[in-house]
Amino acid sequence: MRSLTGPLTSSDLSNSGNGPQLRVAYQGLPGAYSESAAAKAYPNCEAVPCEQFESAFDAVERWLVDRAVLPIENSLGGSIHRNYDLLLRHKLHIVGEVKYAVRHCLLANYGVKLQDLKRVLSHPQALAQCEHTLTKLGVVREAVDDTAGAAQFVASNKLQDAGAVASALAAEIYDLNILANDIQDDTDNVTRFLMLAREPIIPGIDRPFKTSIVFSLEEGPGVLFKALAVFAMREINLTKIESRPRNKKPFRIADEGVNGPLKYFDYLFYVDFEASMASQNAQNALRHLKEFATFLRVLGSYPMDISQT
Amino acid sequence: MRSLTGPLTSSDLSNSGNGPQLRVAYQGLPGAYSESAAAKAYPNCEAVPCEQFESAFDAVERWLVDRAVLPIENSLGGSIHRNYDLLLRHKLHIVGEVKYAVRHCLLANYGVKLQDLKRVLSHPQALAQCEHTLTKLGVVREAVDDTAGAAQFVASNKLQDAGAVASALAAEIYDLNILANDIQDDTDNVTRFLMLAREPIIPGIDRPFKTSIVFSLEEGPGVLFKALAVFAMREINLTKIESRPRNKKPFRIADEGVNGPLKYFDYLFYVDFEASMASQNAQNALRHLKEFATFLRVLGSYPMDISQT
Repeated sequence: MRSLTGPLTSSDLSNSGNGPQLRVAYQGLPGAYSESAAAKAYPNCEAVPCEQFESAFDAVERWLVDRAVLPIENSLGGSIHRNYDLLLRHKLHIVGEVKYAVRHCLLANYGVKLQDLKRVLSHPQALAQCEHTLTKLGVVREAVDDTAGAAQFVASNKLQDAGAVASALAAEIYDLNILANDIQDDTDNVTRFLMLAREPIIPGIDRPFKTSIVFSLEEGPGVLFKALAVFAMREINLTKIESRPRNKKPFRIADEGVNGPLKYFDYLFYVDFEASMASQNAQNALRHLKEFATFLRVLGSYPMDISQT
Repeated sequence: MRSLTGPLTSSDLSNSGNGPQLRVAYQGLPGAYSESAAAKAYPNCEAVPCEQFESAFDAVERWLVDRAVLPIENSLGGSIHRNYDLLLRHKLHIVGEVKYAVRHCLLANYGVKLQDLKRVLSHPQALAQCEHTLTKLGVVREAVDDTAGAAQFVASNKLQDAGAVASALAAEIYDLNILANDIQDDTDNVTRFLMLAREPIIPGIDRPFKTSIVFSLEEGPGVLFKALAVFAMREINLTKIESRPRNKKPFRIADEGVNGPLKYFDYLFYVDFEASMASQNAQNALRHLKEFATFLRVLGSYPMDISQT
């Protein structure tokens, strides 16, 4: 097993099953979808539940765990600005990404049949995503804090008239029976998770890399166009671009220490581009962007997840 | 009062208090933040609660109500892709926007004091947004379907040990006492709502207008750059740009009837720009964009909300 003290190299990711000792923080309870994403990112890792997103950042920064795996965008819900904010306020680096298709199951205690169900518990978003199925069943929907918590509640109270909408992993953990698989109305429900570490990986050029940056520009017509020109001129493909709604509140940026300076931005942009920061081309592009960006930070340069979700 | 049968003109918005009869659909229960947004958009309107976002679209299309007011992006949560999807699948037009600052209050029955509270009910997102305050109070947090529902539950059960996190409007509706105002941790919690109608407004040039479009491009380096050039060349400022995560599933587009064709997209982009479609400049820009966009739809051209939130 590699030492965890030195900076990571891109080979860390190729054998992402680097020993059962790798501790990976995720937000939620055991059986949460984030835990499954952590397991996809780091097979055989020890997944460590955290109550809040921010506690997952803290856990990595204070060496309690080695990595964090956190959701950054969902195909239905969009980008999670709060986690972009946390990326800016903390000093962690993106070392990888993993796409995870959310597949809701209907769980109940063994012996309980579909027609026994009077109510179904889950997170409000999960209940909403299974609207059609649950309406057809004619059950009362009860909202709780999270999907895994719903499964835990049904199991520990040995409920005979209630089910839970949660992951297949939650069924396993809380010893529940899967009454139905894939009960979500919309099949295209994919969440993209980021893998975060204290040290950046040294990007290679041996396989497709992606780089995530955040930058701000002075306001005015055409400035974004100018910013995108630095990539277009160098034939660098963008996989994501998003302007952040104007923020009246200053951000605390971690670049200059955890108590770093407060900064105000007219606009913030998130851009992901298909290039490794090991390539001269990408370095030139960022040097060019830096000439007129009022703020620029590389969140990470990491291997693309090219797997099918 | 104006007739509601003809196409709307931009003057509809200047006297948005156009009679108490205007029925406006919103998603949620009475006292939901969306209801307050509807009231800000259309003072003196009759706000009509809908259980789902889609039922609000249906209600307008079937003439059950005159308008819908729906959230499209939040400063913490990001864009609500699901509502963009609904805009594409339905035939409604954006006729205005309204920004609404979410201000959470702590509510309880009259006579109940802060120190009596053992638990606090609300939507999980609202509970999370008041993390610090609730932790300081040392109360148990209970997640329910929505903020207004929490207030209703506390009131109708005359709970003496429980409070709710909800809007000031919910306090009024359910006759609850406001124990604390503005208890959210993050003060910059602003939601942008769209005002939707069956007929587009005829955009004027008498005040600042904004136009929202959705388009798709063939994949490849530099195509987005080319698309933005059509605006930059004409000095049209963009207030929003967002690429939609790749969608494996086809969209059903309403352009050619409700059962319109299924279309597949490599990429979808959302752009808002600061120009009225009444201006020749904006028309030229869209004509130019249409030359190479594989799909283009104007969602609406409407007066900007320039009020302070």
